[in-house]
Amino acid sequence: MQLYVGAKELSWSQKAAAEAEAVASISCSGHGRAYLDGLIMDNKPVCECHECYGGRDCSVFLNGCAANAGSGDPLFLEPFWIKNAANSAVLISGWHRMSYYFNDGSYISQQLENHIVKIHSIAKNAITKGKYIVFGVGSTQLLSAAVFALSTNLSSRANVVAKAPFYSPYKEQTDFFETARFHFVDNLKNVSDYGPEVIEFVTSPNNPDGNFRKPVFEGSSVKYIYDYAYYWPHYTAIPAPANEDVMIFAHSKFSGHAGSRFGWALVKDKQIYDRMLTYIDIAELGTSRDTQLRALQLFKAMQQGDGKEIFHFAYKTMRDRWEQVSQIISRSTRFTIQEIPPQFCTFFQKVRGPSPAFAWVKCERKEDSNCAEVFSRAKITGRRGSIFGSDERYVRLSLTKGQDDFDLLIHRLTDLVSEKN
Amino acid sequence: MQLYVGAKELSWSQKAAAEAEAVASISCSGHGRAYLDGLIMDNKPVCECHECYGGRDCSVFLNGCAANAGSGDPLFLEPFWIKNAANSAVLISGWHRMSYYFNDGSYISQQLENHIVKIHSIAKNAITKGKYIVFGVGSTQLLSAAVFALSTNLSSRANVVAKAPFYSPYKEQTDFFETARFHFVDNLKNVSDYGPEVIEFVTSPNNPDGNFRKPVFEGSSVKYIYDYAYYWPHYTAIPAPANEDVMIFAHSKFSGHAGSRFGWALVKDKQIYDRMLTYIDIAELGTSRDTQLRALQLFKAMQQGDGKEIFHFAYKTMRDRWEQVSQIISRSTRFTIQEIPPQFCTFFQKVRGPSPAFAWVKCERKEDSNCAEVFSRAKITGRRGSIFGSDERYVRLSLTKGQDDFDLLIHRLTDLVSEKN
Repeated sequence: MQLYVGAKELSWSQKAAAEAEAVASISCSGHGRAYLDGLIMDNKPVCECHECYGGRDCSVFLNGCAANAGSGDPLFLEPFWIKNAANSAVLISGWHRMSYYFNDGSYISQQLENHIVKIHSIAKNAITKGKYIVFGVGSTQLLSAAVFALSTNLSSRANVVAKAPFYSPYKEQTDFFETARFHFVDNLKNVSDYGPEVIEFVTSPNNPDGNFRKPVFEGSSVKYIYDYAYYWPHYTAIPAPANEDVMIFAHSKFSGHAGSRFGWALVKDKQIYDRMLTYIDIAELGTSRDTQLRALQLFKAMQQGDGKEIFHFAYKTMRDRWEQVSQIISRSTRFTIQEIPPQFCTFFQKVRGPSPAFAWVKCERKEDSNCAEVFSRAKITGRRGSIFGSDERYVRLSLTKGQDDFDLLIHRLTDLVSEKN
Repeated sequence: MQLYVGAKELSWSQKAAAEAEAVASISCSGHGRAYLDGLIMDNKPVCECHECYGGRDCSVFLNGCAANAGSGDPLFLEPFWIKNAANSAVLISGWHRMSYYFNDGSYISQQLENHIVKIHSIAKNAITKGKYIVFGVGSTQLLSAAVFALSTNLSSRANVVAKAPFYSPYKEQTDFFETARFHFVDNLKNVSDYGPEVIEFVTSPNNPDGNFRKPVFEGSSVKYIYDYAYYWPHYTAIPAPANEDVMIFAHSKFSGHAGSRFGWALVKDKQIYDRMLTYIDIAELGTSRDTQLRALQLFKAMQQGDGKEIFHFAYKTMRDRWEQVSQIISRSTRFTIQEIPPQFCTFFQKVRGPSPAFAWVKCERKEDSNCAEVFSRAKITGRRGSIFGSDERYVRLSLTKGQDDFDLLIHRLTDLVSEKN
């Protein structure tokens, strides 16, 4: 769509546009940002400072502040959107999509669905042909919708499983919404102990360790939920497009818009698709149309030119970060990080090295049995191994945050590794 | 906030603003609308026509088309937003709130929370002092969050109940998410049969019949979820501000933005509040920040002047519609509609008559035992009584839709009532 025809006079939209530009122009010293919905002081939104910065304009570094590498906040993608400001902005009128329904009676934007298909064909990471698409409030919600859908009409209660280390919401969410139809099983035991009804989460590449995963369980009655949040050229080589029965993708790890709470599932089977749709309908009558409109605008902006710029930007950023972190860790015998072998990538059409979202660090010394504590003493906040169903000898460090957070992580990590003891 | 200082030159926001205005200027003959995310033909979004209109510009009335009075789509509020175009538009930059978290670590916009408090104080419909606020994906999701929160740590499984006629998702949602902790009980029997653990939905004014409701169950261990979706001057007199333990409100029935999927709960008890927050966090890590920003803008727009314009507009529209419908029905002995007594309203500071969201129509003739079918034959689509746990002698007609839908309803209703047989 190319409706814009030059610097025509604006009428009702002028005020909103001017307000957005005014907020964007508030200076926060490069260490923070003002937002349209930020708290107001002296009639304008205040600077919201990055974690280790303070002062009205965020110019003050807070000495001794810990590097927060806890959450997987994907702020490393923010510079891409600032660079693409004009194409990615969207103006929502007061009367936009007030109805419960799109014109076709659904809760799903057909245009957005079309753009999701295009994005996958550019990234070469999933086969969309012959798949149905369900939208959810983040991929988070779709995980639960998939468990509900796959546990319908089974011969016995489904055992929901994930091989450690795994993303903790698989367990937290399944426990929280536990019904007579399914429950989460901790600590995978002998595969043969489980009976016929198993639903396995397969995260590939895996969170936290960035390695490809294959299912642990086999058999015609085993059902899989493939969490492909990280199956983008940003974070991994793409050996071939994925083509599984239930595949879940997240806006947050792809475009960086975690706050939008938007995700989608590609589903092969019509009945499973219908059940997942039913879940979303009953839970909340579909995902926000405002969010769908914004996601559409972002997807369109990404598809400017050959549509590959975001992947190049994201890969380069994550690869550089990984190289810095792994170089520092390699200087030490106290710590090791995961190995990720180079692999041929159909997106880049060449063998490429690792660029994972997280460093999965192991403390090798006998006395360092609580690795997160070792890092915490060195003023680095990570996520402890037990959160991922793993050993406390491990800690996960996020590499996806904003540049200030990452720079501080590198600084603290360098100090830690150079410690004599 | 008043950042806008005149017709300054715009830069990166110009394109989005111009696109929104271009789409808004597409003519659909007053019987449809083009949207930014509509399907594209000839390089621009197509007109999406109201239900009984067709043609490229929606100028063709489709003869014999049934009046759809099924859903409670709140499109009657659209003209208010078109009138307030400049104040209600919002421009979202590509980098707006990419993080999972607001600056305070929460998933909830403090500014939006503040504006919700203001709106309640203007409408005089709820006491917010001493209450915690939870956001959900529509009030729909908060109904489920409340059931989960109130059924924690009980002595026995909770019976979830609602007196018929009731809004069907209470049952559908509770059945769908049923756990060992709660289940929905159909067909209220003797109150004494229920044991101690009861969670009662109380909808006041009630959907479908618009009358005030008091709880059926009493006792210190009974827990109530007050659904106040319709407790606004739009739809009812406000005798006094509500002050219950768990009160749920919907953006959709208040501002008319059903598509935004946004609602909030006011909760008195800290522990119940914490549990509802946990539900939202585990389900999806909070509601969309894009939606929160837009809701904030709409709330700000409503608070221009004395902040009462929307209530006057909504009340007047709904009262006029009710008067038209009740006048037509009163000409017939075949049908009756609910009675809603006039009542003193603290918002208007006077006694005021009814302006409900729905007509709850009863077919009085012995042979008209399926009222929805009688209406369907007369080309009027309503919702049958059984959907509300009630008798098929009743049908619900929505009065909240757009003007075209309402006009056609009046037309078909007039024909039906003038039928000799």
